[in-house]
Amino acid sequence: METRGTHIVCELSGCSPALLTDVDGVRNVMESAAREANAEILKVAFHRFQPQGVSGVVVIAESHLSIHTWPESGYAAVDFYTCGDHTNPWRACEYAAQMLGATSMLTTEVKRGIASTNGQYTHVVHEHAGQLMAKRSA
Amino acid sequence: METRGTHIVCELSGCSPALLTDVDGVRNVMESAAREANAEILKVAFHRFQPQGVSGVVVIAESHLSIHTWPESGYAAVDFYTCGDHTNPWRACEYAAQMLGATSMLTTEVKRGIASTNGQYTHVVHEHAGQLMAKRSA
Repeated sequence: METRGTHIVCELSGCSPALLTDVDGVRNVMESAAREANAEILKVAFHRFQPQGVSGVVVIAESHLSIHTWPESGYAAVDFYTCGDHTNPWRACEYAAQMLGATSMLTTEVKRGIASTNGQYTHVVHEHAGQLMAKRSA
Repeated sequence: METRGTHIVCELSGCSPALLTDVDGVRNVMESAAREANAEILKVAFHRFQPQGVSGVVVIAESHLSIHTWPESGYAAVDFYTCGDHTNPWRACEYAAQMLGATSMLTTEVKRGIASTNGQYTHVVHEHAGQLMAKRSA
């Protein structure tokens, strides 16, 4: 099945509030995650909210990674979307989850840009494709 | 059900190849789409590929919009992800589809950041939440 990319929609819980507040730290994690996926970084755009929270995107030659953080809840909504056989968005996902100190991770995988016989593009959704991480002991 | 946002994963087909190639045009469409959703634009990052194709993201105060285009196929993979009761990502989605000349649109809606009783965040997927557009006559 030919696709135009794999998009992982990911909810991270139990993350370190301090890490989720640090815009430079979050940017570094997401840039490193892109490299873990073997993607080529083209542009980055990050913003720190007041009093807290970070939003940011890494545009890669193979689509994008994005993150939005709620430090007060230890929660981050993260997307890892890459095209091409040379990239692996799951490596980026697992790396970011680990680096942000997540204690649980819920993911759905969307295979995007699948051509139908009528020339229309569709996608296929694999709900809860990833495993929840075991709750770490403190 | 309290969520941290609505994320529309959208495949557009039959778009104008000329429009999908024009990085300034695509940026304008996505910025206008953000305004249609009643979102506040914080940052934009767009890239034009050679020989063709555009990737770009609009970071908004309420999450992000993103687009990746394949002009040679009339295809664009677009995401509309907004938080807050004051925004409506479906308005952005329908606006962008219209402005890019799409003849069909396939969407899945993900309600993100739903807190479970155990403190872990999850999401709920509504597959093919939007209607396919009627094929337009030429």
